[in-house]
Amino acid sequence: MERIGVGLLGMGTVGTGVFKALKSNQDVILKRTDTLFEVKKILVQDPDKKRQAEDAQSLLTTDFQQVLEAGIQVVVEAIGGLEPARSFIERAFEAGCHVVTANKELLAKHGSELERLARSRGVQLLYEASVGGGIPVLGTMRHLLKSNRIHRITGILNGTTNYILTEMASKGTPFDEVLAEAQKLGYAEADPTSDVDGFDAAYKLAILARLSFDAEVPVTEIPREGIREITPGELVLARRLGYAVKLLARGEQYGEKGPVSLAVGPALLPLTHSLSSVDGIYNAIHLEADVVQDITLVGQGAGEEPTASAVVEDLCNLYCLPPSKFIPSEETLLLPSQHSGGSRFIYLETAQHLDEGDAEGLKRRLQAIGLPVGETGISRVTDGSGVAFILRRWDPLYRGVLLAELGLEVSCLTDRPVHGSSTVEEAVRLEAGSAV
Amino acid sequence: MERIGVGLLGMGTVGTGVFKALKSNQDVILKRTDTLFEVKKILVQDPDKKRQAEDAQSLLTTDFQQVLEAGIQVVVEAIGGLEPARSFIERAFEAGCHVVTANKELLAKHGSELERLARSRGVQLLYEASVGGGIPVLGTMRHLLKSNRIHRITGILNGTTNYILTEMASKGTPFDEVLAEAQKLGYAEADPTSDVDGFDAAYKLAILARLSFDAEVPVTEIPREGIREITPGELVLARRLGYAVKLLARGEQYGEKGPVSLAVGPALLPLTHSLSSVDGIYNAIHLEADVVQDITLVGQGAGEEPTASAVVEDLCNLYCLPPSKFIPSEETLLLPSQHSGGSRFIYLETAQHLDEGDAEGLKRRLQAIGLPVGETGISRVTDGSGVAFILRRWDPLYRGVLLAELGLEVSCLTDRPVHGSSTVEEAVRLEAGSAV
Ligand SMILES: NC(=O)c1ccc[n+]([C@@H]2O[C@H](COP(=O)([O-])OP(=O)(O)OC[C@H]3O[C@@H](n4cnc5c(N)ncnc54)[C@H](OP(=O)(O)O)[C@@H]3O)[C@@H](O)[C@H]2O)c1
Ligand SMILES: NC(=O)c1ccc[n+]([C@@H]2O[C@H](COP(=O)([O-])OP(=O)(O)OC[C@H]3O[C@@H](n4cnc5c(N)ncnc54)[C@H](OP(=O)(O)O)[C@@H]3O)[C@@H](O)[C@H]2O)c1
Repeated sequence: MERIGVGLLGMGTVGTGVFKALKSNQDVILKRTDTLFEVKKILVQDPDKKRQAEDAQSLLTTDFQQVLEAGIQVVVEAIGGLEPARSFIERAFEAGCHVVTANKELLAKHGSELERLARSRGVQLLYEASVGGGIPVLGTMRHLLKSNRIHRITGILNGTTNYILTEMASKGTPFDEVLAEAQKLGYAEADPTSDVDGFDAAYKLAILARLSFDAEVPVTEIPREGIREITPGELVLARRLGYAVKLLARGEQYGEKGPVSLAVGPALLPLTHSLSSVDGIYNAIHLEADVVQDITLVGQGAGEEPTASAVVEDLCNLYCLPPSKFIPSEETLLLPSQHSGGSRFIYLETAQHLDEGDAEGLKRRLQAIGLPVGETGISRVTDGSGVAFILRRWDPLYRGVLLAELGLEVSCLTDRPVHGSSTVEEAVRLEAGSAV
Repeated sequence: MERIGVGLLGMGTVGTGVFKALKSNQDVILKRTDTLFEVKKILVQDPDKKRQAEDAQSLLTTDFQQVLEAGIQVVVEAIGGLEPARSFIERAFEAGCHVVTANKELLAKHGSELERLARSRGVQLLYEASVGGGIPVLGTMRHLLKSNRIHRITGILNGTTNYILTEMASKGTPFDEVLAEAQKLGYAEADPTSDVDGFDAAYKLAILARLSFDAEVPVTEIPREGIREITPGELVLARRLGYAVKLLARGEQYGEKGPVSLAVGPALLPLTHSLSSVDGIYNAIHLEADVVQDITLVGQGAGEEPTASAVVEDLCNLYCLPPSKFIPSEETLLLPSQHSGGSRFIYLETAQHLDEGDAEGLKRRLQAIGLPVGETGISRVTDGSGVAFILRRWDPLYRGVLLAELGLEVSCLTDRPVHGSSTVEEAVRLEAGSAV
């Protein structure tokens, strides 16, 4: 049996979960890994705050140096943010400690430098909890898909926004109301920006892209759109046309070591896609690779226990699995994400009261000027009507054409990509269609 | 770089896939594992059969001894069935070779003895492809959930039956017709018994139970029911009441090292369950564990490429991941699967033409004699009507009561468990309901 001293940085949601799981599952961990993990010191900001885990009290300190000197081999970083988390991790490496962290922002922004530093010090950096909470997605990519070339990843990587969209779709409640409720329930932060504006998902996508495509992309360059503009009317009509609207993180690589495209934003998934039924606080990642074809991993993307599971698994893996051979690569060419081609879902609201007949009329009008309009739907919304249609073969210029041709007082007009509808597929489908 | 000689047994679907993947992905494998796998000999039955992979021709033999003497370190067994596969594997162990296999029947029936033999010879036995095709479920349980106690597994483990049920539900076509079509498309074997009667799923469940619960259960003792009796009418009404009917493999353990219950059979999943939307040839496994809460893995459960992926990943892992510490345990106590308690879906067909009003009448009649009847539905079927209802708190004695009380000429009456409705949950729900 090996005894490993652990220094825990932070005793919030994640820190508390890790502390409790190491205690409650000590026996299984010992049996399966022959290793006993002992938390020696816990770094917090406010030593007087009442803690849920009472036996943690005597381990608290506000001095990081005390943690480093407590006879530890591993530091678990569960503070979050860039500083002081980053400096603490660097000092831990310099002291010869491995580091396990849940910090997606730091990993997205400085992961490569940190990996390099760890390598140069002969220690490891693991961060399973930073993407998808309890879902072992990084471990799966690293250890269980070694013979596969992953060429596409599609993820629902943020539980807060997925919860909000699920509630909006099922209850017809507008964004602001659901957000307020989510904040009350603890599913959303007081400042929801990181979640609802897509920053959190973009961090996770940057981390996934590094591991799966070997691609180094500055997170600020990932095109990003949040969910604030989505209305319940849009969700209802999308579903009626056979799609779910999700905040998707999407990454694709064109050829090995080739350029990539990455994007975070609301997109439509056909209801037959394995991610379309991932609802509420659940996260999921869909991986497409050359031999295995496709794999979907679903689980709870946040919360005390799932996140603690990922951290504790990383702790075990420091001693059970081979260290990463990952070599951070130079910056990768980022292609602009496809703005034209593929199908597009168009949704607009107008103060006019329209019916099915009007919708058919609009559709015929657009088809008459050559726009490839597919399924169409209409619905009653507060103060008027919502109109939706699928435009096959999208071109951004169509926005102006649409507004002019429809001749409606439009209070909002959104266009969203339909996932999986590439230009090539579409061309084939259109050709088949035109033969009918 | 290490060179590893591979002896391939069988050049059917799986063998061909493995041969091709080792070739097409040799570069990635070499880069990531520093190992070059070379197929030295291929054992087949008929050396004159035309093979898809032409460069395999010169490696064919019908003499297993020649394979063993070809300078190999690993045997990939892709023949299937008990003999001669078992003897070949034993001889491979004795010759000091590791073995990778996709053979679920052999692993389910003799896995523990084979593990023991491998251990005693200092070699490894890996079998990821035997459960869930390309889904890395065994690897996930073994390497990525080490600190978790898994207490429940629920799986859609057979692609043939899932395809048949999906087709029946979406097109309303009866079992026999869909089976015939599936056979034409190559989704079902000429002799479909192993799939449609649940044997294949039971093999996989036995393997999963061994790894996740440390439970050794003779596969013949796993209660097993197939899908032959399912009618399209049943599937339609189940969906209308909010459920999908799936052939589920279900395992549960009561306390660590405790007794288990295992069963394979059609069961209802609420449409909100992550497995309910797993359709067609896809397989999926839902794992519930104490820290991570729950994880669902979805992927293609069969086919040349996904299965080859699992075999080739195993080949890599022989040299990259730590060998299993699995110690086969003595036989585990198998509890009879719950026949009473929990909710039950009842479906019957009658030649009489019934309408919604009749359904309500039947429901009231059953409630009057104290049966806890919930959601009810009715539909037109060929030659009459289908009636369905959910009975909360099931008792097998109810079958007789039902038949007597309904007073209908019933041509079929089935009852199916509703997954996730334990007696305890139900008791709580009933209590809440009675207060309304
Ligand atoms: N919550 C989740 O479900 C989840 C899921 C995945 C990943 N993560 C990531 O995990 C990390 C931690 O998240 P969390 O939700 O556990 O945060 P949290 O609940 O806000 O806890 C943060 C902890 O860090 C301590 N802390 C903050 N600043 C500090 C400083 N300058 N020096 C010392 N200690 C400091 C706080 O001390 P006091 O207690 O004294 O205030 C607190 O204990 C973040 O990177 C987050 O993105 C969280
Ligand atoms: N097919 C799948 O998608 C799938 C998925 C998961 C697991 N599996 C498992 O993988 C295994 C192989 O399945 P498969 O579909 O590849 O089977 P298959 O297509 O029927 O191929 C069997 C191969 O084994 C050879 N063979 C049969 N008996 C032999 C004997 N006595 N001596 C030497 N060679 C013999 C055959 O030789 P000839 O070519 O000369 O006839 C053939 O090449 C089975 O255990 C199956 O359960 C299959």
